[in-house]
Amino acid sequence: MFETVTMNERCSEKKYAEEAPRLRVKLFEAQRLCIEHRIPLLITVAGVNGAGRGSVVNRLSEWMDSKHLQNHVFWRESDEEKARPRDWRFWRCLPAAGETAVFFGGWYAEPLRAYCCDEVSGHEFNSRMHQCRELEMCLADSGMVLVKFWLHLDEKTHDERLKKRLKHKELLHFTPYDKKVSVNYSGMLSAASKAITLTDRPFAPWTIIDATDARQRDLMVAEAIISAVNRAVAARAAKRQCAEASNAALPEETSAGLGTAGIIPSLNGIDLSSKADPATYKRELASLQHDIRTLSFKAFKRGISTTLVFEGWDASGKGGAIRRVLAGVDSRISRVIPVSAPSDEELAHHYLWRFWRHLPRAGFMTVYDRSWYGRVLVERVENLTPREDWSRAYSEINLFEEQLTANNNILLKFWLHISPEEQLRRFREREATPWKRYKITPEDWRNREKWDAYVQAADEMFLRTSTEYAPWHVIAGEDKKFARLAVLRAVREALRTALANKKK
Amino acid sequence: MFETVTMNERCSEKKYAEEAPRLRVKLFEAQRLCIEHRIPLLITVAGVNGAGRGSVVNRLSEWMDSKHLQNHVFWRESDEEKARPRDWRFWRCLPAAGETAVFFGGWYAEPLRAYCCDEVSGHEFNSRMHQCRELEMCLADSGMVLVKFWLHLDEKTHDERLKKRLKHKELLHFTPYDKKVSVNYSGMLSAASKAITLTDRPFAPWTIIDATDARQRDLMVAEAIISAVNRAVAARAAKRQCAEASNAALPEETSAGLGTAGIIPSLNGIDLSSKADPATYKRELASLQHDIRTLSFKAFKRGISTTLVFEGWDASGKGGAIRRVLAGVDSRISRVIPVSAPSDEELAHHYLWRFWRHLPRAGFMTVYDRSWYGRVLVERVENLTPREDWSRAYSEINLFEEQLTANNNILLKFWLHISPEEQLRRFREREATPWKRYKITPEDWRNREKWDAYVQAADEMFLRTSTEYAPWHVIAGEDKKFARLAVLRAVREALRTALANKKK
Repeated sequence: MFETVTMNERCSEKKYAEEAPRLRVKLFEAQRLCIEHRIPLLITVAGVNGAGRGSVVNRLSEWMDSKHLQNHVFWRESDEEKARPRDWRFWRCLPAAGETAVFFGGWYAEPLRAYCCDEVSGHEFNSRMHQCRELEMCLADSGMVLVKFWLHLDEKTHDERLKKRLKHKELLHFTPYDKKVSVNYSGMLSAASKAITLTDRPFAPWTIIDATDARQRDLMVAEAIISAVNRAVAARAAKRQCAEASNAALPEETSAGLGTAGIIPSLNGIDLSSKADPATYKRELASLQHDIRTLSFKAFKRGISTTLVFEGWDASGKGGAIRRVLAGVDSRISRVIPVSAPSDEELAHHYLWRFWRHLPRAGFMTVYDRSWYGRVLVERVENLTPREDWSRAYSEINLFEEQLTANNNILLKFWLHISPEEQLRRFREREATPWKRYKITPEDWRNREKWDAYVQAADEMFLRTSTEYAPWHVIAGEDKKFARLAVLRAVREALRTALANKKK
Repeated sequence: MFETVTMNERCSEKKYAEEAPRLRVKLFEAQRLCIEHRIPLLITVAGVNGAGRGSVVNRLSEWMDSKHLQNHVFWRESDEEKARPRDWRFWRCLPAAGETAVFFGGWYAEPLRAYCCDEVSGHEFNSRMHQCRELEMCLADSGMVLVKFWLHLDEKTHDERLKKRLKHKELLHFTPYDKKVSVNYSGMLSAASKAITLTDRPFAPWTIIDATDARQRDLMVAEAIISAVNRAVAARAAKRQCAEASNAALPEETSAGLGTAGIIPSLNGIDLSSKADPATYKRELASLQHDIRTLSFKAFKRGISTTLVFEGWDASGKGGAIRRVLAGVDSRISRVIPVSAPSDEELAHHYLWRFWRHLPRAGFMTVYDRSWYGRVLVERVENLTPREDWSRAYSEINLFEEQLTANNNILLKFWLHISPEEQLRRFREREATPWKRYKITPEDWRNREKWDAYVQAADEMFLRTSTEYAPWHVIAGEDKKFARLAVLRAVREALRTALANKKK
């Protein structure tokens, strides 16, 4: 891998004086293109110690329009970061449309350090790199341009610079592991080549640069960014032309009912006749809430977070079920996140960004009233999103939920199901009830007309996102009391299981 | 204070059955009004333990449109919160236009607890309450409706409920101080009466409710919110009518030059002839950067954060100066925040919210390229903001900066000053330099025509916001080198002083 780089290439002061201004113009022209086409640009600057990552970061801030550029260093993890899925700290810093983010080390820094210091096995390191690759693919698919630099030094130069660095005592103060890595040149090099091999992909290629000569290094960095942006813009144009074709190339929707094998739910297969006994309802509800209260406190103490997702028809009783669950959870450790139209900041990011940003801390219970599944439901049925994008969302959602459920955290996904007739009855009822009237909008009536399209979308959603770690619970909601008890039972069950699994 | 409440009032089940539906309708009609008029609504629910604060919070989520309502509990401080000014955790949860936030305890919970447990002196408690009042005034001025509830119980009822509570062992687990407060009924009561007396103001009144009877309690809560919103809407209408009058009632702008007394800078009084010796520039710059590097690491280690604000004319050299400062600071502990047009999320909040949300953690150096002073500069000169609002901003900014500089944190405010002639020269130069051309916009030319208006605005800004803890540094920028050295010297000086002051 490293042989591909011509080493020890030098750039004379004279040549630099000619080249730099030319590249500088091209570089911010590239940045202008990003702004114009609303392309987010993510630049990762990694490399061996002393190769001048910091200088490159500063040079980019100098050469590019700093009004649209942010540097991010992922150094010490704050407890808010520790208490959330691993990638949360990266998601919160991802560039918006037209913005440039420079990641110092990015998501490679920590795994590289840990592997080079023998803190993780080669196996762990590999799977970590696979996750990096999947994340990068997910971002690239959404239109982000990813440029990754590895700044290389031969051992001799590296060691010479290390000696110089060691004079800056404070550096050692503040990055305790710095030294440990620095002295292990070969370890870092093998870790790096492994990482590069595993994550060097067309959608997020690595550019390896001999950083011995600072001028040469900076010119090569600029060139790589410029060509990456231009390639991306060209690709966009090409893609727009054959958008039709590429859509046609996508597999047909799975026809509704594919799940009727039984393992995967399918709406038309749901028995809506189930009812709760009104006599015992109150008693069971109370005891469920009492248990959930105790269990949720235990989960909090053990740092197990619970995420509940509620989807389903309008008027299917989501709000009522949510209130019954939360009546049993201390409001200090629970939160409802109603999902409605995204803000412009949210629209400028990957569609999952708005959910990442609100992820609860460890131990909390967070309830999403509607969720990221809007991507494959309303956005699909209403044609708000190109088919290519929503059909890609299934796997993106699975990856997202994989992180949500890591470390024994709980994720429950509920679909409250009712018949069109029952919905009509409830709409009428709402219109008759003063404090429910506001819940009924013309849109609700329009959605009713698309009932079958939603059934098809929901069934495909169940099929593609019912993972082992996060299955769908389709609840018969024709009888509200029955539905509420079913939901609360599932929550209690999940809490009990998680508490039993979790090693103390 | 507490005598004003009719105690032990009861609400029969029958009366409740009649009243509740009526109030419920009115309540969400009030919420609809907030959404329609884009009024943020902040409801604080405080009270003695066992009075049912949690039940009230849940009841509100049930009665109001939960899609526009968020509950917030300020419980254990995360380290990200600890590492920022005290009010940061509240600002990040403030409701946006049209949204409702229910604060469980709000900014009163912690001071009340601490005072009732004798952890803070009466003096400290008083000044804390003054700060709460000032914050509430600042929010009310920006159009927020604040409703504050104190749920009261007589000692007998309180003690009975405490006994019941103590059966919930887990409660004691999770809120270690709960018990300590609960048993100290009289202490909490005197703390509360003190807090209420000090913060019961027309713009943020307290409603004291006898919480003995849950039904009565909930009805009174609903009524208070409804009338508060209706009063606010009426007030708005009235205000719109006499907007002219109220503007006229404001004091005249201070004419430029008022500051020439010498203590406060005034632009026309600035000597622009100063130049740096080109021969020694490089050397001094290097040594300044070296010192700043070492000092900034020390400051980081000691948790002293540095905030640098750069204002000044277009092309006055802000960007260049910023780069020279940061060249001396490790990019892991520094950050630039370029301030441009606000997002819609930001526009939906108090104008300071967008700055609060980006505040750095303790120990970091954050550079604002333009800042909250836009409120009294561009927004004033371009008439983007009513006079009433920008003229109020001076004191709001002073309060904000008081928190920024608490605990010996550093805040430096630089105005880079140049002559109109020099600006013209630089504009032309930029147009001639390819990679600077993008920096010149038609707007820059328009701003030039308003030079005198900006001078007046700047001078009044210096006058009203040059506080002892955060004075303005007006830098003669005609000679870029001179300006850069002056800025770096000020930064080094400030770091040295702070490090000397800070007790280890």
